[in-house]
Amino acid sequence: MTGDRELAALQARLTEFAAARRWEPFHTPKNLAAALSVEASELLEIFQWLTPEQSARVMEDPEQAHRVEDEVADVLAYLLQLCAALGVDPLSALDAKIGRNEKRFPAPGA
Amino acid sequence: MTGDRELAALQARLTEFAAARRWEPFHTPKNLAAALSVEASELLEIFQWLTPEQSARVMEDPEQAHRVEDEVADVLAYLLQLCAALGVDPLSALDAKIGRNEKRFPAPGA
Amino acid sequence: MTGDRELAALQARLTEFAAARRWEPFHTPKNLAAALSVEASELLEIFQWLTPEQSARVMEDPEQAHRVEDEVADVLAYLLQLCAALGVDPLSALDAKIGRNEKRFPAPGA
Amino acid sequence: MTGDRELAALQARLTEFAAARRWEPFHTPKNLAAALSVEASELLEIFQWLTPEQSARVMEDPEQAHRVEDEVADVLAYLLQLCAALGVDPLSALDAKIGRNEKRFPAPGA
Repeated sequence: MTGDRELAALQARLTEFAAARRWEPFHTPKNLAAALSVEASELLEIFQWLTPEQSARVMEDPEQAHRVEDEVADVLAYLLQLCAALGVDPLSALDAKIGRNEKRFPAPGA
Repeated sequence: MTGDRELAALQARLTEFAAARRWEPFHTPKNLAAALSVEASELLEIFQWLTPEQSARVMEDPEQAHRVEDEVADVLAYLLQLCAALGVDPLSALDAKIGRNEKRFPAPGA
Repeated sequence: MTGDRELAALQARLTEFAAARRWEPFHTPKNLAAALSVEASELLEIFQWLTPEQSARVMEDPEQAHRVEDEVADVLAYLLQLCAALGVDPLSALDAKIGRNEKRFPAPGA
Repeated sequence: MTGDRELAALQARLTEFAAARRWEPFHTPKNLAAALSVEASELLEIFQWLTPEQSARVMEDPEQAHRVEDEVADVLAYLLQLCAALGVDPLSALDAKIGRNEKRFPAPGA
């Protein structure tokens, strides 16, 4: 997770990709949020009939593994495009949320 | 999007957070995929009755802006936890996917 | 599932309910489809951390049972409103789909 | 919405269909709730890039119309199967919910 594959570079590539294809008019925050939820459901679809144990072994099958990676990529792509459209920094948002959760759910013994 | 807030560090904090609270038994890939899709829907809920134009101004309202950031964080959190559970690198997956899409949807004039 | 509670009567009540509150401008097919998917996720949320066995006993707890019934109602409400907006008869659609599935997945021994 | 296509009859056909194919072990309430949310997202997918105006005309295209009817059927099928598994009457649940909403959102002038 380093170098030129870093998150900001990927986000910039996604923005350029959409601009080169004149897709910006479709990429309202509302549409991107819908697309994100649709892709998250496609990821869930892979697991919906599996037992918990089967779900833990899903990467052992190359075809399923590829499908998982493909849907993970789609979810992350729409999340990054939504964040770009709204001016939200997803890493700062997550950093802040973990901080809030550490107070909300104190660890036992902490 | 740099420094100690980087993606891998956040993913490690999420893993520690869950371990300290003994939440691992709940964090099967199947359950994490369900939680991810539920959080993506909570993000969509913010936009569901808005016009495209209203959706583009959602960050102007501080309360809505906070809600968006909170749900973005939840989506990213479950995506990172799912990837950790499955051994998937989300940045590599997205990098590969963009490459495939560049071939699948050639840019006009490219 | 009979008498004045029948599906068409409920659908008519939902239409009147929205009209009396001037909600029709919000009830585009797109918005209703988004709301339907959001409510379906709220139903899933009840089950997301449960084992398969726990999910089968969810109605034993009165509070959980009420929450399930409430979310089932929301899903059905938005499905009926979407169908009204689009002129789709959901029972005919399901009847036709079961017919197609009976050909697509022949029963063993049939 | 009458005769042998009524809701209870369709629900019984779905139960028989699953039993004849030995699918009951997969049809835990948790799995059915996941499948319901996945199908609701497939319905949303049809609308995700459309303007509100385009979404209102989606049934004018025969191919899109068929896709809508197919996904409406899938959503209703999983909702009925989930209700059968849990012992929930969806029409009573909706009747009760509309009653609660009539108190919660009084109509102007009522």
